[in-house]
Amino acid sequence: MKTDIEIAQSVTLKPITDIAHKAEIKEDDLELYGKYKAKLSFDAILEAEKNDKGNLILVTAINPTPAGEGKSTVTIGLADALSHIGKKTMIALREPSLGPVMGVKGGAAGGGFAQVLPMEDINLHFTGDMHAITTANNALSALIDNHLHQGNELNIDPRRILWKRVVDLNDRALRQVTIGLGSPLNGIPREDGFDITVASEIMAILCLATSLENLKERLASIVIGYRYDRSPVYVRDLKVEGALALILKDALKPNLVQTIYGTPALVHGGPFANIAHGCNSVLATTTALGLADYVVTEAGFGADLGAEKFLDIKVPQLPTTPDAVVIVATIRALKMHGGVAKTDLTDENVDALEKGFANLARHVANIRQYGVPAVVAINEFVSDTEAEIETLKALCASIDVPVALTSVWAKGAEGGVALAETLIKTLDTKPSDYTRLYQDNQSIEAKIEAIVTKIYGGNKVIFEKKAQTQIAQIVKNGWDNLPICMAKTQYSFSDDPTLLGAPENFAITIRELVPKLGAGFIVALTGDVMTMPGLPKAPAALNMDVTSDGTAVGLF
Amino acid sequence: MKTDIEIAQSVTLKPITDIAHKAEIKEDDLELYGKYKAKLSFDAILEAEKNDKGNLILVTAINPTPAGEGKSTVTIGLADALSHIGKKTMIALREPSLGPVMGVKGGAAGGGFAQVLPMEDINLHFTGDMHAITTANNALSALIDNHLHQGNELNIDPRRILWKRVVDLNDRALRQVTIGLGSPLNGIPREDGFDITVASEIMAILCLATSLENLKERLASIVIGYRYDRSPVYVRDLKVEGALALILKDALKPNLVQTIYGTPALVHGGPFANIAHGCNSVLATTTALGLADYVVTEAGFGADLGAEKFLDIKVPQLPTTPDAVVIVATIRALKMHGGVAKTDLTDENVDALEKGFANLARHVANIRQYGVPAVVAINEFVSDTEAEIETLKALCASIDVPVALTSVWAKGAEGGVALAETLIKTLDTKPSDYTRLYQDNQSIEAKIEAIVTKIYGGNKVIFEKKAQTQIAQIVKNGWDNLPICMAKTQYSFSDDPTLLGAPENFAITIRELVPKLGAGFIVALTGDVMTMPGLPKAPAALNMDVTSDGTAVGLF
Repeated sequence: MKTDIEIAQSVTLKPITDIAHKAEIKEDDLELYGKYKAKLSFDAILEAEKNDKGNLILVTAINPTPAGEGKSTVTIGLADALSHIGKKTMIALREPSLGPVMGVKGGAAGGGFAQVLPMEDINLHFTGDMHAITTANNALSALIDNHLHQGNELNIDPRRILWKRVVDLNDRALRQVTIGLGSPLNGIPREDGFDITVASEIMAILCLATSLENLKERLASIVIGYRYDRSPVYVRDLKVEGALALILKDALKPNLVQTIYGTPALVHGGPFANIAHGCNSVLATTTALGLADYVVTEAGFGADLGAEKFLDIKVPQLPTTPDAVVIVATIRALKMHGGVAKTDLTDENVDALEKGFANLARHVANIRQYGVPAVVAINEFVSDTEAEIETLKALCASIDVPVALTSVWAKGAEGGVALAETLIKTLDTKPSDYTRLYQDNQSIEAKIEAIVTKIYGGNKVIFEKKAQTQIAQIVKNGWDNLPICMAKTQYSFSDDPTLLGAPENFAITIRELVPKLGAGFIVALTGDVMTMPGLPKAPAALNMDVTSDGTAVGLF
Repeated sequence: MKTDIEIAQSVTLKPITDIAHKAEIKEDDLELYGKYKAKLSFDAILEAEKNDKGNLILVTAINPTPAGEGKSTVTIGLADALSHIGKKTMIALREPSLGPVMGVKGGAAGGGFAQVLPMEDINLHFTGDMHAITTANNALSALIDNHLHQGNELNIDPRRILWKRVVDLNDRALRQVTIGLGSPLNGIPREDGFDITVASEIMAILCLATSLENLKERLASIVIGYRYDRSPVYVRDLKVEGALALILKDALKPNLVQTIYGTPALVHGGPFANIAHGCNSVLATTTALGLADYVVTEAGFGADLGAEKFLDIKVPQLPTTPDAVVIVATIRALKMHGGVAKTDLTDENVDALEKGFANLARHVANIRQYGVPAVVAINEFVSDTEAEIETLKALCASIDVPVALTSVWAKGAEGGVALAETLIKTLDTKPSDYTRLYQDNQSIEAKIEAIVTKIYGGNKVIFEKKAQTQIAQIVKNGWDNLPICMAKTQYSFSDDPTLLGAPENFAITIRELVPKLGAGFIVALTGDVMTMPGLPKAPAALNMDVTSDGTAVGLF
């Protein structure tokens, strides 16, 4: 069987100018990065914003399991299938972080015959967006430490600096560090830490900004820490939002690439789905909505995290609301939610599937709470049995949710036609009537309680002492009017990763709240949230290489 | 008076495809980065390597002073002037580091009417080379720390790790740090530090590599530290040279841009001129030599550092040897070498000029030791008086070195014609007979003594105890067959930055030796060498901004 990179390298790519032509983007509005990648100019975005909006389709998933669900793959394959049946379609996808690529993943641009290309570039430096974000983030850090060193006019308390440095790598040794050591010439010694770039607030800002001006306003609003008197210090107090925006001016422009089948895809931005909102950029989605009749996009992790944040945080920044949500599930993963161990997944187990279906059913009900129709995509695996497939279809019918099998990994566009047709039928027959879960002017506690009780299925929220103090501070600073970005394990509806299926009657503990004034949300931490992954014993990097003519080896 | 960025933004750029056409580069061999930047494919490099070689002209300078010499500006202006008088010319220049741009410099792509464009892009992310180097450097760090954390199979002594992390920023607080703190899950606690990216050995490697294969071999040869038994640990022991080369595969390709006058310029690589060799990439220079009849390139700092390293370290990697060396001087700077304070430079002072001329005269003599003809370029300033100019011309005549005034900053190509004609005449009448200063098979001590006595004008080398121990270790490891890369203050021939002019009878103290097996040289440190600059009290970043249409403000 061919690997992803072998499939990708066997495809003859179309010039990106042809893809742009197909998407009705003027050649003059392209900023080429090689022959097969381009950024869209701000003019192109403004032009697209004037057009009628296409249908917005979100692809999300059940709670992820080690069995793998293939959400990005289905997103890409669904779009290819829509193109295949004659619909004018664009994809709006997140761009991968190099850290996981070098660590475990080896690549993150779809899989099999549902990939965005050139996968080597997308998985490595792409058009430099991640590097620009890393640089802007760390330039701010350097400017903060320089401010301390040069006399600390703003009276910043070095013990209460929230802003951390970042690298776009998995590097656990940088999670907690001490800086400024060795000499008075080396600045003020203090504790610091590095997050992975995709966890930077600047990534979230870039993905929520609606224009360069809006980007700059958001950057100016970042809270970098507190003064000795506990009053907040903003980036605007340091007067460096202009420099940061300058560093980010090209990174803000969406990147155009293509799928294996030549479907245009805007791959742009990729914030973490725990500490941030986990969706590609507002500008890419908005542009795609102006260019295509069908825009397929995705959100990180399961629907309790990714879709909730998409619907409550991202959608209010978009010019339109979602028309349908596709929930990806696999029979393997549902069986894990039903209690089967990973090693036993190849055995037929209809009982476990029925039990695990509760996870999917709750996600379907959740999406319906937003007034948006749901469609289930069963991402087929060779181990799925006929009995299991029929059971799952019957279960879906029992809750009246349309369902389709997809096999886009193995069959590409053809493998997604059933799903595409089911989706179109849903769009034609079930109008969306989107409504948010909560209102921003509710209290912090009420907003969190809405998410916990209505989406997670919990019955109680416990605010730890620290969180209570922080809520008081947030209210005092006038920041309580912002939406909530929940940081919770992706593996369970609860904050306990071992509680699979659809747990009930549990409490969610809020340990800490972090103001992200630039992104425009308050992060609520429910447990240890990993913002800097580590490398495994045998990192994927060990298998990577490049041939003398520049061909990439070992990405997959 | 217009600022550099205002001049740059007033120029109508030619499409980079036109510039490539002019340089006889096939359009198919271009990898476009927007409309005005492109990387050359490896095929383009191979094609160019087959051609006859053009004249190689190095631009260097007297020891720099706070008065400023304008070496890059003269390099660009000279090339424009050569083009202007009908010579087929290319520039091979270093690319700027973002750290100094955000710090003091605000920009580093020439000045006035002698600039490479688009200056905003070149000064910011350009084509991402710096970011790729940062990423490769830090990926290696993460892999080293992961190796320690996962059981340390190679028995690496965490106290003897040479490899440091980097950021492409001025960030003094990162010079000395403690990492791996906080939890057993966060790796092995140890001391570490960050250099600026241009000080990374990977930057030196990228600039000396002759092919992708050679790059990989050099990466494999990096010594990252020592085992508990003091034996060296190479990157090849970690088996990650393939991954690092993959990260660097595009960064290795030279970047094509244009000057204000449309002269093609390869701007590629920019290693520090103290800890490394301070020249643009071998691949860019080699490619330019195959494409043009005249290739103008530069080396960092004064000729004692930059030109010496160009001639002894870089030239052996080139397919040809230099045909002439242009030494840039200003009357202001020579007066400082003659003892005038910066505040008094606008006053005419022929005596000080005569005294300071000793600095220039020694650089001329030094270049002649290599068998390469020297030409002096006087970069004019408004404060220069007629008497001073005539004196300097007479002084140059007294040592029989051709001299020409240049005013390329103010007048562009026209302002460089006199220098271009003087250079052409020199090339036509004085054939170069290049010979290296020392042979690689001499001892470490003999090579350093050759540089100190023949170039610096010192009479003694003192090897501190630590340096002696390290030399013994270098010999034991079989590394003594490599050239020497001196790390010394750029302000003086000596290791004392306050000894201006042409000091004599001084000793140079070698404190430490650092093996750079990938770059292929041994660094000899003569004092505190700054590998991570700091930001000033009012960083250039404070003046930077971007308008809503994406126009850069505050680069200069």
